[in-house]
Amino acid sequence: MKAVAVFPKQREVRVIDAPEPRLQSPTQVKVRTREVGVCGTDKDILEFAYGTPPPGSEYLIPGHECLGEVVEVGSAVRGFQKGDLVVPRVRRPCPHATCPACRHGHPDFCLTGDYTERGIKDAHGFCAESFVEDVAYLHRAPVELRDVAVLTEPLTIAEKALRQVKHIQERLPWRPEPGRAVVLGAGPVGQLGVMALLRRGYVTTVYSRSPKPNVKAAAAEAVGAPYLSSKEVSPEELVRRAGAPDLVYEATGSATAAFESLKALAPNGVLVFTGVPSHGQELSLEGAELMKQWVLRNQVVLGTVNASDSDFAAALDDLGRFRARWPGGLERLITSRHPPEDFADVVLGKKGGGGIKHVITFG
Amino acid sequence: MKAVAVFPKQREVRVIDAPEPRLQSPTQVKVRTREVGVCGTDKDILEFAYGTPPPGSEYLIPGHECLGEVVEVGSAVRGFQKGDLVVPRVRRPCPHATCPACRHGHPDFCLTGDYTERGIKDAHGFCAESFVEDVAYLHRAPVELRDVAVLTEPLTIAEKALRQVKHIQERLPWRPEPGRAVVLGAGPVGQLGVMALLRRGYVTTVYSRSPKPNVKAAAAEAVGAPYLSSKEVSPEELVRRAGAPDLVYEATGSATAAFESLKALAPNGVLVFTGVPSHGQELSLEGAELMKQWVLRNQVVLGTVNASDSDFAAALDDLGRFRARWPGGLERLITSRHPPEDFADVVLGKKGGGGIKHVITFG
Repeated sequence: MKAVAVFPKQREVRVIDAPEPRLQSPTQVKVRTREVGVCGTDKDILEFAYGTPPPGSEYLIPGHECLGEVVEVGSAVRGFQKGDLVVPRVRRPCPHATCPACRHGHPDFCLTGDYTERGIKDAHGFCAESFVEDVAYLHRAPVELRDVAVLTEPLTIAEKALRQVKHIQERLPWRPEPGRAVVLGAGPVGQLGVMALLRRGYVTTVYSRSPKPNVKAAAAEAVGAPYLSSKEVSPEELVRRAGAPDLVYEATGSATAAFESLKALAPNGVLVFTGVPSHGQELSLEGAELMKQWVLRNQVVLGTVNASDSDFAAALDDLGRFRARWPGGLERLITSRHPPEDFADVVLGKKGGGGIKHVITFG
Repeated sequence: MKAVAVFPKQREVRVIDAPEPRLQSPTQVKVRTREVGVCGTDKDILEFAYGTPPPGSEYLIPGHECLGEVVEVGSAVRGFQKGDLVVPRVRRPCPHATCPACRHGHPDFCLTGDYTERGIKDAHGFCAESFVEDVAYLHRAPVELRDVAVLTEPLTIAEKALRQVKHIQERLPWRPEPGRAVVLGAGPVGQLGVMALLRRGYVTTVYSRSPKPNVKAAAAEAVGAPYLSSKEVSPEELVRRAGAPDLVYEATGSATAAFESLKALAPNGVLVFTGVPSHGQELSLEGAELMKQWVLRNQVVLGTVNASDSDFAAALDDLGRFRARWPGGLERLITSRHPPEDFADVVLGKKGGGGIKHVITFG
């Protein structure tokens, strides 16, 4: 079958003819890949800065944001049948009996770091014509979401983050209403974060680099989130216009932007870090002032990565709600579709550049 | 009556003969001050960097850590009588109807910043022979705690912090056992934090500047917390010896130490900032690495200040438990007692220097 393959030793990326995967246990399902979204992690993998092939393999099949269709079902599988649309999760538990997170089915909180991630770490991903997966790691997607369900995985970042934020804010002795949110960055994680925040009742503003007009600003404003450019509006002016945010949702991977945004955060506010920054950003901070404010304002900064079973289920639910509330809003986030042969060019920005989410299609 | 008074305009601190306060409402109580603890906030006030006299007054009576004895009871007061030992809270609600925190009796989470703090902001404190207080802001201290109940207020910092940490960690899909804690700093807030952590089952290590032997190390080790000096043991060596902490409890006010400690924090760990740093600490951080770890390890940094009703009640309960578990352990934290005339010298370190908690006694 056709598969994208990254060879870290040879520093090479190409489409190969990989062995067709087969069911190896009665709880597995074979899936024909329909669409694979690409993201910043794929870029790190293609630059050979990240990613590990499965043990014994010279190459890694990348791709971890996926929508597929069931083509074969193991004998012990219940609740899935041929033709079902499915979204696979990414992370698999570590093997250590001592890791409570993995033992409780939450490898997204793995304590040992020895988890596996399909398409990223020690396991092939989904950027191939088909793959086999245990049914425990699959979520059925409703057929009416077929054009947008490839956005499930990036949306799970917001689902996990906002579930945690809600819980954390319940430490306050009253029940705070969802207040004002600022989303830093207008890429796919930012845009899906905007929808998730609006859905929960936050008055949400996007604060990102490029001045308007641009496709990202248009997508955000189409769902009702004003877009301000950090090149035109200072953080102080942002606060004057939008009010001090109760929640800052950082989706740029810029450490500077992240820490700068703390100055704007309201008392009892939460800053969520979702972006993994690229290497080498040195920061010079007014450390004392920052910490003083953090303490005197009872603020929380939360780092969050990956997502679990329930976050995938919540993301699929939310995609349905977003589709009903903002017809065309999700479709607009997928700005280009490409054949697998274009994987490297798309990931490295040589094709489809300047858009929001780029998708590789199969079949 | 005798009172310590800080005159910000004249930049002067002296003992004055202040008007004896009188009951002005039937829910008030008059209290004869027994002991007042001094802390870093008093130092900022004495250096005229912080603190505001009540409206219309030229001076501020400082002192916010207090143990007193009831000498007069308003006609509507129930449950308090002459001779009762009492500890007053510090912060009073802001006047704004829009502040949910203050309206719910939690001015420690005030959103407007217009709260009042006795001995700090817009209201006299307790460093005087007597004071009047509404019964709603008083907690009765058991008589057997008379020698240590002046430590109630500094202990409330840990009570509020650890209550929040417990709630925040309950976001995890399993119930984590209290694990390993590192307390940064071995002053009163650090030492009381150590006891509060040990009581909750954390294996606790103190990491502070001065090499052993010293009075702070002795106090920590007397209750079972190993003490390591940051001058002798690197953060990496700390982790090798004590394990990566699940909780770092920062009680130094050093932004550098606080952010450095993030490198040691275990996955899913929480770092608590309790210290307000002195001005002007610039920080140069490997911002990208720090943020990457924060995200990939699902970590939380919590700033916390002040405390509420329930935290004072919990602190008084805990003082009783600490006393039973470590006889003499609390007494050892109070390293000197002084007359009110020595207030400035004690606060500025000219008398009683090098100890842990210094207390002003009255009567």
